Amino acid sequence: MDDVILLDFWVSVFGQRVRIALAEKGVHYENREENPQNKTPLLLEMNPVHKKIPVLIHQGKPVCESNIIVQYIDEVWHDDKSPSLLPSDPYLRAQARFWADFVDKKVYEAGKKIWMTEGEEDRQVAKKELIEVLKVLEGQLGEKPYLVGESFGLADIALIPFSVWFHAFGKMTMNMNIERECPKLAAWVNRCMEREAVSKSLPHPHKIYEFDQKKKKGHE
Amino acid sequence: MDDVILLDFWVSVFGQRVRIALAEKGVHYENREENPQNKTPLLLEMNPVHKKIPVLIHQGKPVCESNIIVQYIDEVWHDDKSPSLLPSDPYLRAQARFWADFVDKKVYEAGKKIWMTEGEEDRQVAKKELIEVLKVLEGQLGEKPYLVGESFGLADIALIPFSVWFHAFGKMTMNMNIERECPKLAAWVNRCMEREAVSKSLPHPHKIYEFDQKKKKGHE
Repeated sequence: MDDVILLDFWVSVFGQRVRIALAEKGVHYENREENPQNKTPLLLEMNPVHKKIPVLIHQGKPVCESNIIVQYIDEVWHDDKSPSLLPSDPYLRAQARFWADFVDKKVYEAGKKIWMTEGEEDRQVAKKELIEVLKVLEGQLGEKPYLVGESFGLADIALIPFSVWFHAFGKMTMNMNIERECPKLAAWVNRCMEREAVSKSLPHPHKIYEFDQKKKKGHE
Repeated sequence: MDDVILLDFWVSVFGQRVRIALAEKGVHYENREENPQNKTPLLLEMNPVHKKIPVLIHQGKPVCESNIIVQYIDEVWHDDKSPSLLPSDPYLRAQARFWADFVDKKVYEAGKKIWMTEGEEDRQVAKKELIEVLKVLEGQLGEKPYLVGESFGLADIALIPFSVWFHAFGKMTMNMNIERECPKLAAWVNRCMEREAVSKSLPHPHKIYEFDQKKKKGHE
């Protein structure tokens, strides 16, 4: 037993990143589901600054912020048996961090706008913004199998949970077709999903869509 | 010659971080001053995504985003002659990244509000917000000499350029007194400023205040 607890919430793209990294490394851990509406005292104690999941508690000590947790996991469970999640070359490491940060700043913000927006017109503006952001990633991907270097890693882990959103956006009568707009990115999604660590860590797109629909009904 | 060029703008707290890291490591570099109102083709070519300084161009290849650049510098110029800017322990490394990220998310946002706000009442609200954020950092500092671990590093480099702002805020008739509100943080500022790499990389507070006054006049 590695003495690892993950404070998580199944819908969270940030929690999903940590689940993917732990699965890639083959780390055994206890997953504790949090309710964002009713946070446990443990969560508030372990992340008093942001009070947010995910928190990785390793040997009693908390690590917060998903991209930071993924790097922590890569540094702690570093052996020949599991893949490295960051390249060894400093320049490629900086690239990986840059694109993981880009996903937080741009993809998350653009995607959130789509979830939050109610009117059809505003939603189309938000959709256009997201497509533009994804086209930047399409450019970065180019002919490479993964976003940075030749191996699956930090930047891919940062982005792949959002692929579930794209499916949901497609269902939200948005006529958003990633295959048509960003064919290389669509192929990259399929490539990532072939990894068991990824596919088993992400919820089915239909469940996310259902969750959103229920939430909206609850607010009516 | 290390073949290093820094695209910079003297007022930028983000550029100052990179200058401090390069100075700590004793890296020789060429500093090229950019004008944010009239960006050079080189800047647009080297940072096509965000189009912002600082950009570190090392052997012709660009690295962007200040906290990422500092980590890159630490990884590339890693020897016994200069200090490490990140601890070797993975948990402390995660802590350093967490607090550097906290500065970006909280200190920068709260500080920016003060610069941008015109009315006295709004400014007092913004000031209160900044003080609250600084008190969190005061708590993290505790009795330690630096923000994370025992050595000056990434988190300190992220925060120290803002100390120049605090002086300017004091002058902006805001009655903001860091020594009174956060005495440990004030002592930490002095401790950092004793490092030549820090003091020579930061502009005089009066110059920042003057710059702001001129800018405001220009907008009238």
